[in-house]
Parts: sequence; C-alpha cells; structure tokens
Amino acid sequence: MDLNNFKIQIRKITDFSENECALFLPYLNRRLLKKHEHLLKEGQSVNSIAFVEKGNLRLYYLSDGKEINNHFFLEGDYAVSYLDFLKQRPSRYFIQALEDCELLTFDSQSLQAAYDQSKNWERFGRIIAESAYATATNRFESFLFLSARDRYLQMQKDYPRFIQRIPLFHLASYLGIEPESLSRIRKEISTKSAKY
Amino acid sequence: MDLNNFKIQIRKITDFSENECALFLPYLNRRLLKKHEHLLKEGQSVNSIAFVEKGNLRLYYLSDGKEINNHFFLEGDYAVSYLDFLKQRPSRYFIQALEDCELLTFDSQSLQAAYDQSKNWERFGRIIAESAYATATNRFESFLFLSARDRYLQMQKDYPRFIQRIPLFHLASYLGIEPESLSRIRKEISTKSAKY
Repeated sequence: MDLNNFKIQIRKITDFSENECALFLPYLNRRLLKKHEHLLKEGQSVNSIAFVEKGNLRLYYLSDGKEINNHFFLEGDYAVSYLDFLKQRPSRYFIQALEDCELLTFDSQSLQAAYDQSKNWERFGRIIAESAYATATNRFESFLFLSARDRYLQMQKDYPRFIQRIPLFHLASYLGIEPESLSRIRKEISTKSAKY
Repeated sequence: MDLNNFKIQIRKITDFSENECALFLPYLNRRLLKKHEHLLKEGQSVNSIAFVEKGNLRLYYLSDGKEINNHFFLEGDYAVSYLDFLKQRPSRYFIQALEDCELLTFDSQSLQAAYDQSKNWERFGRIIAESAYATATNRFESFLFLSARDRYLQMQKDYPRFIQRIPLFHLASYLGIEPESLSRIRKEISTKSAKY
C-alpha cells in the first residue's frame, strides 16, 4: 500500500517526524468506492474518517425528501460527518461517491491512540477541528450575510476545485438555489468579466 | 489575583499538572465589564478570549439593523467570536455583557506559546475547537431539522442555564422567533407537563 501521498498531506498540517508518521500508518485501511456508491447513510453510526486519495464525494441530508448538499470532499480532504464522528452517534447525513474513489480510512480509536502518543498528532487533531469549525461557520454565515451571487463568488474563491469538478446541479443544491438560477448567475458574472 | 476557579475549569477539559497550569497563569489579565458594556464590536479585530468568572454575555450580529443573538456565555465559558479569533480578522459580531462581568482574558500569542510548550495545552485547544464545532453545527442543524418548539426543547436540554439566566426576549432572538411565540411555546409545554 503506497502511503506517500497521505504522508505528504498530513505534513502540510504539521511537522511530523518519520516516527510520528510511522506510528499512524498501520491504522490505515484502503477502501474503494464505485461512482454513486455510499460511504455513509443516514442512521449509520460514524466511527471512521476517509482520506480521499482519488475521486470526490458529496455530503448531503434529506429535507422533506429532497437531497440537499452540505459539502464536497476532493483529493487530500478528510471525508466524514464530523460531529457524528466526534459524538460517535448515528448520522443525519449521507456521503456518496460522485466519481470512482480510492480512500484511506481510519477509526476513532486509532486517532485517540495517536493523540495519546504524540504532541504533533494532538496538534493535527486541533488544526483539523479548527478547520472544520471554519468550514461550518463560513457556510452558516454565507447564508446569514450573503446573497446567492455572493455565495457563489465566495465558493469560487474558497473552493475553486468545486467549480472544476462538481456538476452544476450539485453546486446549486450546495448554494441553496435552483440550477437555473446558478446558470444565470454564472452567465452574468462571465459577461461582466468579459467587459473589463 | 485568585486563579483557582480558572484552574478548576481547565482541569475539567484535560488532566493538567501544576506545572502545565503554572505556565499559562502569567498570561491571564483580569477585566471587568459593566452591564450593557461591549467586550467586542463589529469591525474590531479579535485577538483575545475571555474566560467568564462571573456574569454573562451575548454574542449577536446585525441583520438589516436588527440584533440577532447567536450564543450566550456564562460562568466557566470562553467568550469569543471564535472564527474571527482563529483568523485574526475583524469581527462581524458584537459581544455584550448582560450583567456586570468579571473576566480573565488571554491572547492568541499566549495560547500559541502554551501549545508549543505542552501536549496537554494542544489537547485543550483540540477539545475547545471540537466543542466549538459541535455548538455551531448543533445550532445550524437545529434550524435545518427542528421546529421552533423543538429548538426550545433542545436548548432546555443542552443549555438549562440559558433558561435560568437569560431574559426571554434575548432567548427568543436566539431561537429565531418573536417573544410572543416563545411565551406561547413555554405555556403549552408547562400545561402539557402539568397534565402528567
């Protein structure tokens, strides 16, 4: 199992030594998901995090039977319904592969063991939690403070890969608008930038 | 300056030794706020966290000129506009004392120094971040998935002190309803419980 990519990614978060990397690698399991397959369904308990090596996934929930996208996970991201993972409780969310995916999964017990053994793993956990807080709060605030057009522009700035990789109708659901409105916003923005 | 209460509270989060406590105590500053005084105003940069020794405060934002409460901080809580603190950026929020307050403040540099010096302080930072994530996500989800009545019941369960200490019209703003609707919900619930 080639874990080089995982090592490169976690070293972007904190300055792990070879030993600190090595203590975690045995906890990793490879998992493959076919396009449209689910990593998680509503009601399932959440005990693992999936590092995305290849592919992408969406996190969504059901509202009156309608699927609403809450986030997307791409290469280098950690796919998880994070609060359910922290609370070790059944999920309100679904996570589904939008392409064929290659994942490296690890469970809560492994992470706790790493936290106990190393200060840098504690730091990793802190920075992941802070980053999850920032993502959740930015999303909440974007609905509080921004118009749909400005939510689109913020997504373009914060998550340029979403626009390159995620189908338009999934992005529309993430932005809380209809696909037609998103097409109109994109057209307006590209017409405006063409003028200057 | 009596820091015993602060030590008791941080030891509820992780198992600090006397030395680990001692390394942080010099960073603390005492601050008093009169009722209605602001700890933070929109546009101010956020460089400190205030541990609440006595009193309580509200975190709110302006929406079309109307004040909307987002959270309350009581004794033992850490009052901060947390994302603005993490990003060291100007705040979109206000924090105002609802009673006379006694606070212990510490700044971002002090916390980073403690993280660098001690694994337990890293753990403290991780658990605070995870807890902030849980609070923010629970609030977001309560608006997604729950009726106003169920949001009230969740608040009663998760934050019983809010109900004992915070004026009804401030709670109504936090729940996203009018004070009259909150009075009606409370009356319905107390009538129902009196029946059994």
